[in-house]
Amino acid sequence: MAASSSLRPNPHTSPLSTPRRQQQHSSLSRAIPCSLSFQSHNSGSVSLRYLRCRVESGRVPLRVSASSATQVMDQAPSRASSGVPTVVEVDLGDRSYPIYIGSGLLDQPDLLQRHIHGKKVLVVTNTTIGPLYLDKVIDALTVGNPNVSVESVILPDGEQYKNMDTLMKVFDKAIESRLDRRCTFVALGGGVIGDMCGYAAASFLRGVNFIQIPTTVMAQVDSSVGGKTGINHRLGKNLIGAFYQPQCVLIDTNTLNTLPERELASGFAEVIKYGLIRDADFFEWQEKNMHVLMARDPNALAYAIKRSCQNKAEVVSLDEKESGLRATLNLGHTFGHAIETGCGYGQWLHGEAVAAGTVMAVDMSYRLGWIDDSIVKRVQKILEQAKLPIAPPEIMTVDMFKSVMAVDKKVADGLLRLILLKGSLGSCVFTGDYDRKALDETLHAFCKS
Amino acid sequence: MAASSSLRPNPHTSPLSTPRRQQQHSSLSRAIPCSLSFQSHNSGSVSLRYLRCRVESGRVPLRVSASSATQVMDQAPSRASSGVPTVVEVDLGDRSYPIYIGSGLLDQPDLLQRHIHGKKVLVVTNTTIGPLYLDKVIDALTVGNPNVSVESVILPDGEQYKNMDTLMKVFDKAIESRLDRRCTFVALGGGVIGDMCGYAAASFLRGVNFIQIPTTVMAQVDSSVGGKTGINHRLGKNLIGAFYQPQCVLIDTNTLNTLPERELASGFAEVIKYGLIRDADFFEWQEKNMHVLMARDPNALAYAIKRSCQNKAEVVSLDEKESGLRATLNLGHTFGHAIETGCGYGQWLHGEAVAAGTVMAVDMSYRLGWIDDSIVKRVQKILEQAKLPIAPPEIMTVDMFKSVMAVDKKVADGLLRLILLKGSLGSCVFTGDYDRKALDETLHAFCKS
Repeated sequence: MAASSSLRPNPHTSPLSTPRRQQQHSSLSRAIPCSLSFQSHNSGSVSLRYLRCRVESGRVPLRVSASSATQVMDQAPSRASSGVPTVVEVDLGDRSYPIYIGSGLLDQPDLLQRHIHGKKVLVVTNTTIGPLYLDKVIDALTVGNPNVSVESVILPDGEQYKNMDTLMKVFDKAIESRLDRRCTFVALGGGVIGDMCGYAAASFLRGVNFIQIPTTVMAQVDSSVGGKTGINHRLGKNLIGAFYQPQCVLIDTNTLNTLPERELASGFAEVIKYGLIRDADFFEWQEKNMHVLMARDPNALAYAIKRSCQNKAEVVSLDEKESGLRATLNLGHTFGHAIETGCGYGQWLHGEAVAAGTVMAVDMSYRLGWIDDSIVKRVQKILEQAKLPIAPPEIMTVDMFKSVMAVDKKVADGLLRLILLKGSLGSCVFTGDYDRKALDETLHAFCKS
Repeated sequence: MAASSSLRPNPHTSPLSTPRRQQQHSSLSRAIPCSLSFQSHNSGSVSLRYLRCRVESGRVPLRVSASSATQVMDQAPSRASSGVPTVVEVDLGDRSYPIYIGSGLLDQPDLLQRHIHGKKVLVVTNTTIGPLYLDKVIDALTVGNPNVSVESVILPDGEQYKNMDTLMKVFDKAIESRLDRRCTFVALGGGVIGDMCGYAAASFLRGVNFIQIPTTVMAQVDSSVGGKTGINHRLGKNLIGAFYQPQCVLIDTNTLNTLPERELASGFAEVIKYGLIRDADFFEWQEKNMHVLMARDPNALAYAIKRSCQNKAEVVSLDEKESGLRATLNLGHTFGHAIETGCGYGQWLHGEAVAAGTVMAVDMSYRLGWIDDSIVKRVQKILEQAKLPIAPPEIMTVDMFKSVMAVDKKVADGLLRLILLKGSLGSCVFTGDYDRKALDETLHAFCKS
């Protein structure tokens, strides 16, 4: 896309706490160690591959404070007022799109307006985010653009509303507003809003354009990228939905200024995930910088978001419809979804459930003899630093886990496939070929009954 | 696909009442005159093209009675017991699929089983069709195939149930049955079942395989082919859905033996449509053979179904997502949908509403001076022969038409585009560039207020 082609690595950048290995590969295109062993559900390893990751280093327009700069790795200078976004491309042929990352991007109307084609826009947001950013987004869509009219629908906030009843409110509004096939839906909010708005856009008139403006770390590093959309069913998470790609993702890191502490931490669960499944260097960086991230250092946040999006974009480009590789992004999610469904949607945040689920997946990997205990300890430690749970809530029983996991999307012909760590840090497998005893032992180790 | 490659035109066939022009082009690949003038919503004609239509003449396994054979055009001998289906291919790259057409195809388990990949199948049907054909379909899916288990969900019958509440029953059953991503949904019924089952398949776990087994003329000649799926909203028809292609369409013409008279006629509205928009020879054949079709002559029915599917397959192959050409398949549908929505879903059958809508579209085309009155008369005559309505119900007012037509999917940036006939028989345009006065006059001519 045009915006990314102008970005160049800056030779004057000197990352301060970059691990040595990272520095050795500071070119535009470099190898990220991500040995991913795939196993079919009834056989051994199929392939082991090292993927090359194209990293576009843009100028991250965030101010670096003196105290944090010494601890934050980045390849770009601070340019809080430059307004030039970092761009990560999601390469999907004619469905490719850019992720714009930077502070103050909602003050740059052109970024959004270049992706609006018709005359009508529907902004889908919630009761928390609407009062904070809806006016700003409407301004960004309409300033200097009088032909565009914007409607909005404000949904209740929370995972417990990610269902068909709430989705129908989006359709009602779209139809009452006489939106046509050339309209654009804009998701303004966290993962719940992004997932619902995306599925509504996929389904309204059999598909209209949509744009993601994620306002939580969780949505910025994970759910807004890659086109997974959907709603929950009372029996399981995300069981109804579509693969449907946006026109662009616009991440204004300023929106994190209003994010509650618990939501911030929840997003870090996914950041940590990328390190564990495919990017050991990133995990090591997180170990050094988690306290800086928790303190909301803008440069550290921007870097973590960019690198997470690069990992996500690469995986999605290689396996859009989750036939294999993409499933590895669900480390800890099968256990986590069981926690979310079992506790009642909205009780635990998604990232909190994923954090506990990750500990369980790591525990199981260790019981299988696939990783050594140093990884187990490092995972626990970094999650604790992020103030994330490292065990499921006491209400969860072995039977609750099993009954929800039975309807997981990764079940194939009755066999539950899991993402488990295997080998050195940054390596994982997606497999149904594991000893059931280890799964049972893990469930019993984390549940009282 | 394998099945179609074995089909060859039979040199011994001698169509008896084939129009001369048709006989002149009785090769595998021939030109069908279908001048389609496309107009953008704010300019004149953009292109005029003659499309070549690949016609695969298979052996239609239907018995021809001596009395009907003299009136039915077909290029294949009758082979009621041969079991070799006619195959029409829908060419969509890696989403291509065959349409199998023939009598007794549900007695050929291989046709279905070759398209089943996982171990679980969900048959979606309704209270009318379930008692008639569900056991037969389950047998076809499972005979000699013990690894496959079949679940079924039986929905209430009628357009008034094509909504989100009914759709949720399909998801409930699928999840309770622990179906996974490798499962297959089978739509057994008419257009309502096909549309709902297809949308459920598109959305369940973000997409699973599905198969269409249409049991009405309407579904066999139109709705089961081309991947349009969806449900109605109280404010408009098919406003929520997906483009989602099946693995195959299996048309067992024997299922028409149990079809009520009114449903039979309803399907002919779409058959007539193909003739009017792109296939004048087919329309002329229909004029000669409508009484044979109404008498359910199996050979005539098989021919009408095959030729309709060929027209549909060609249009869908050229424009899957309805960016232009495909919209022409909606002749009469914008008026028709207004009738269906205005009267309450289920009061008028879809084809009945389309028939009245076609008369209105033809009337408007005539008022615009785009066709001569002989076409107006021929359309009225053939619809009357098919016992279809040629005017909307008296309840419909001009305002009712306008309010429903305003949310039609063919509205672009506030402008309603319509399919109208223009030029000689078999020619149409899809355009927003028409005199509004003609639309008003047509609406007032057909409504009392």
